[in-house]
Amino acid sequence: MAESQLFPPEQLFEFTVRVFRHFGVPEDDARTAATVLQAADLRGIDSHGVARLHAYFDMLTLGRIEPKAKITVVRESPSTATVDGGNGLGLVVGPKANEIAMEKALAAGSGWVSVRNSNHFGIAGYYVLQALERDLIGWAMTNTTKLVTPLWGAERVIGTNPIAIAFPGLEEPPIVIDLATTAAAYGKIEIARRANKPIPEGWAIDRSGASTTDPNAMIDGGAMLPLGSDRERGGHKGYGLAVMVDALSAVLSGANWGPFVPPFALRQEIPTRSVGKGTGHFFGALRIDAFIDKDEFKKQIDDYIRTLRKTRPAPGTSGPLVPGDPEREAEGIRRREGIPLVSAVVDELRDISRHAGIPL
Amino acid sequence: MAESQLFPPEQLFEFTVRVFRHFGVPEDDARTAATVLQAADLRGIDSHGVARLHAYFDMLTLGRIEPKAKITVVRESPSTATVDGGNGLGLVVGPKANEIAMEKALAAGSGWVSVRNSNHFGIAGYYVLQALERDLIGWAMTNTTKLVTPLWGAERVIGTNPIAIAFPGLEEPPIVIDLATTAAAYGKIEIARRANKPIPEGWAIDRSGASTTDPNAMIDGGAMLPLGSDRERGGHKGYGLAVMVDALSAVLSGANWGPFVPPFALRQEIPTRSVGKGTGHFFGALRIDAFIDKDEFKKQIDDYIRTLRKTRPAPGTSGPLVPGDPEREAEGIRRREGIPLVSAVVDELRDISRHAGIPL
Repeated sequence: MAESQLFPPEQLFEFTVRVFRHFGVPEDDARTAATVLQAADLRGIDSHGVARLHAYFDMLTLGRIEPKAKITVVRESPSTATVDGGNGLGLVVGPKANEIAMEKALAAGSGWVSVRNSNHFGIAGYYVLQALERDLIGWAMTNTTKLVTPLWGAERVIGTNPIAIAFPGLEEPPIVIDLATTAAAYGKIEIARRANKPIPEGWAIDRSGASTTDPNAMIDGGAMLPLGSDRERGGHKGYGLAVMVDALSAVLSGANWGPFVPPFALRQEIPTRSVGKGTGHFFGALRIDAFIDKDEFKKQIDDYIRTLRKTRPAPGTSGPLVPGDPEREAEGIRRREGIPLVSAVVDELRDISRHAGIPL
Repeated sequence: MAESQLFPPEQLFEFTVRVFRHFGVPEDDARTAATVLQAADLRGIDSHGVARLHAYFDMLTLGRIEPKAKITVVRESPSTATVDGGNGLGLVVGPKANEIAMEKALAAGSGWVSVRNSNHFGIAGYYVLQALERDLIGWAMTNTTKLVTPLWGAERVIGTNPIAIAFPGLEEPPIVIDLATTAAAYGKIEIARRANKPIPEGWAIDRSGASTTDPNAMIDGGAMLPLGSDRERGGHKGYGLAVMVDALSAVLSGANWGPFVPPFALRQEIPTRSVGKGTGHFFGALRIDAFIDKDEFKKQIDDYIRTLRKTRPAPGTSGPLVPGDPEREAEGIRRREGIPLVSAVVDELRDISRHAGIPL
């Protein structure tokens, strides 16, 4: 692992707020955006926290994201809405759209919001944790810039298109499922490249479409493989799930899908055509007590969690984790000890600090 | 491949109807159940068609499934409902619950129905095809008898818990996603056993929890692996998706979940305890025009499908398929040529024929 330096979460939070404020993002929105980024850093999803602040900084500097976006509901029904994010920060559009889904769920039993004209929205897990606070089962999905090949393809056509959903326990912590529909995270391929190490079979193809264990071959014109990796092990399933996320997030809202999703960072190529507006998200919320007594549900989730933990362990492991365990453990440690940032990220924050005149 | 014999779909359909009628299943319900089974046989999902009729026959014979079930809505909101299937045939309860989801979607934009006290409901894909006929985006999930280990476990705790969803095109055929949350189908492991061939790495573990390529080692006390197979390739993701399906289908409805889902066939073991009623399903429907103009949506899906088909092919392949292609092709062939049944299945049907006095 690369050397890293610990930062108090509050320090990074305030810095992030000031960076967004610098571009005229309203105070409340800037705090919301910083909260979403902080959730990633606290939960150990380092690639989606302040490590991405420079990308937002660049996009705002060049005017490719609207700091004071007008977010509008363009169509709605009792349990659904389509939201236009006005090309705002996904970190601001996402929470507002999620809020609409939750309000509709409270009123109509469920709420489903498809979002167009947005940008990168941070970690999907953030949104479903918000829903938990209201005893709702939250869903969040987003499409992302192309990085992944459909099974049996030889090029990048779809994004890593994550899905998150969470279920509350009564005495046990919640089950929090948050997964990209790929075999591995792009961040892990970048780490392997920096460490000059091979990646496992099943993660990626090179530019010819052949399976590769060389991280450079993926990054330089290759593509990631969907969850399942190959036909034998269900790669068509990860690909199908990625298409599902894309259709719900973008085709249903009128955003760009597949290879036409706009880049979230400057170094990424501009798509060859536009088939909609911006990036798309999809949020859902289900009111638990529209289906069953809330406490009964939570007691059963407790029982489910304990049953999973009692599973006989595979040799060489300490047994199954419950989805959400690793992130919750990371959060416990990082709230106490601080957020570790590798030097490359610290350098990027210093660069922002210099350009914007905001002390880190 | 084993030797097989072709049967006209109508012949199998009428036989199936008469078998269900034999137990007093009402005519309409018997035809519905036969339609769901036929959909599996037509679409090439052989394990879920008449190959399973003997299991239903046994369960009905022993009174473990209620032929004239009372199906009731036990709780509802404008966009949701909880249905109790009265321990009826899943092939009858499923279509009725799906109907409620679709009706709610037409009225409130979306409809979500969690079902308890049901039994095996056939293929998830059937339900989402029903939704397509009304220009709805349909979802279907179900939990199933335990066969799969959570990642890092050494025993069967969860089911193969499938997810289906479909999106209509305008000129193109629909995208139909229908996947079990496992690396491979159980049927493929059975086929390997009969053929005395090894299974690929990543499909299964033996009873000690170690990875195995011996189909017998999985079937005799081992377990299947979730989609992703191992930690490196995202096995925790397939496991997370299986838990999601279980929570929505069973915890939300008050059905049995995880290792407590009742068996769908006699040879399977009876769970150690009951945590709810019967098997659980989850159905959803989204009204497309609650979000966006219907034709605009379908045109974009056409464009999406054509974009996927234009993907540069991986070496040695003819390029990516669109989810739903293989099943649609199978249906085209089988409607013309008949449904191929292996001799073991024909023998089972003959056995039913003899016991029930219904000519095949």
